[in-house]
Amino acid sequence: MDVLMTGANGTVGTAIADGLDRGFATLDAAGEADYHADVADYEAIRPAFEGRDAVVHLAGYASTDATWEEALTNNVVGTANVLRAADDAGVDRVVFASSNHVVGMYEADHAPELYEPGYDLLIDHTDPIRPDSHYGASKACGEAFGRQYTENHGIRFLALRIGTVNDPGYDHPYGDAELGVERGEWERGSEAYDRQVARMKGTWLSRRDCASLVERCLSADRRFEVLYGVSDNERRWFDIDHARAAVGYDPRDDGEEWDEPP
Amino acid sequence: MDVLMTGANGTVGTAIADGLDRGFATLDAAGEADYHADVADYEAIRPAFEGRDAVVHLAGYASTDATWEEALTNNVVGTANVLRAADDAGVDRVVFASSNHVVGMYEADHAPELYEPGYDLLIDHTDPIRPDSHYGASKACGEAFGRQYTENHGIRFLALRIGTVNDPGYDHPYGDAELGVERGEWERGSEAYDRQVARMKGTWLSRRDCASLVERCLSADRRFEVLYGVSDNERRWFDIDHARAAVGYDPRDDGEEWDEPP
Repeated sequence: MDVLMTGANGTVGTAIADGLDRGFATLDAAGEADYHADVADYEAIRPAFEGRDAVVHLAGYASTDATWEEALTNNVVGTANVLRAADDAGVDRVVFASSNHVVGMYEADHAPELYEPGYDLLIDHTDPIRPDSHYGASKACGEAFGRQYTENHGIRFLALRIGTVNDPGYDHPYGDAELGVERGEWERGSEAYDRQVARMKGTWLSRRDCASLVERCLSADRRFEVLYGVSDNERRWFDIDHARAAVGYDPRDDGEEWDEPP
Repeated sequence: MDVLMTGANGTVGTAIADGLDRGFATLDAAGEADYHADVADYEAIRPAFEGRDAVVHLAGYASTDATWEEALTNNVVGTANVLRAADDAGVDRVVFASSNHVVGMYEADHAPELYEPGYDLLIDHTDPIRPDSHYGASKACGEAFGRQYTENHGIRFLALRIGTVNDPGYDHPYGDAELGVERGEWERGSEAYDRQVARMKGTWLSRRDCASLVERCLSADRRFEVLYGVSDNERRWFDIDHARAAVGYDPRDDGEEWDEPP
């Protein structure tokens, strides 16, 4: 199976490549890649799609601090271009890195109590979107485009509303907080640190769970799905039963396994 | 109440203006308008929003034959610009002309049986989007942007998934088909003609029902709604009970009242 990965050099891209035995053709605007191109430029990315069996589309501006222009160019136009290029090249499967920020306002309404074990909230794919940012809205657009290409162009489209994936060396719920300590942003054991860790124990998607979820999406016999990408975290507020049923997602990790930073 | 209407010269815009006692500040890229500007150009439209109490946003490319670029520029970027301009100007209410084509694939799956009286299908605001075209997907994006501006910028956003509004002189379910006859596209009484009329009896939104629905949306105490804009047609497959409950929509027309072209 010949798979193109956009945004291959990012945190999620390397998690997928590191965790799977398969190879990928890679496209990225920066760093080493088979194709150096910006997804906002249709003509530049089009050649990379020729002859592929599937696309894993990760490229984009991946932060809630995106301005509207950044989200529009990189995520809305970028994803439109990727779908168009896939369609034009006859590629009939796209796995799309969406985001938990498509529904981030549920979290905002319930935080910080939501971060504690046993809090009673579970968001699934049937809940209405509630973007928390331009970034979240831009990912919602990507999902809408995907739906359209499924309905009218025969492209299988699986959107993963990813929680939090960390870089190698920080592949645990303390990753973000420990990075904050290293950068002098907060002290270990502070309220901000503890809150961040508690959140990450809910939203963490381990690198291996990320890779295995994408692998399942590359072979699943499904036309269109919106799936939450988090590990089997005790504190999660995102449903993963639908991902289990739809594509056989079988996560191995739980943020609760980490009592303290490694 | 000082209301700006974009796309004021179009079929829907004139229906609203003709049907209401209130005045509007008008913006349109063509024809007579207070502001001549293209919604794809943020700087050009921004001045029109100053001091308004609400915006009725109709401007866009309004057909399922839109190419992806046409839908992206006019509808996706255009609606993003309108919301941004409203937010920047402190306008806290936007009524948005969305479209039945956001969920058009339900119709496609059930046509033509769906067009007959008594067919058992009713789509409401809780059903997943199923765009039938780039146009439909672009309107879904507009709804997602609106949700984001409601959640994070305090803008009330009411999206109307409008069925079919006809020009004056053709304000009945035979309008499209009669126009087709005039243009020599089909014969009165042909299968295509009859099918078009049957469809229009389901999707028709009379000009006065359109105007009254928008009027209700301009005063309703709701933060975010997706409402179907069709008259109380016996053959409709779009729910209007939610619009009745949410904003007090009180349609006066039913496509079934027309037994033959006037």
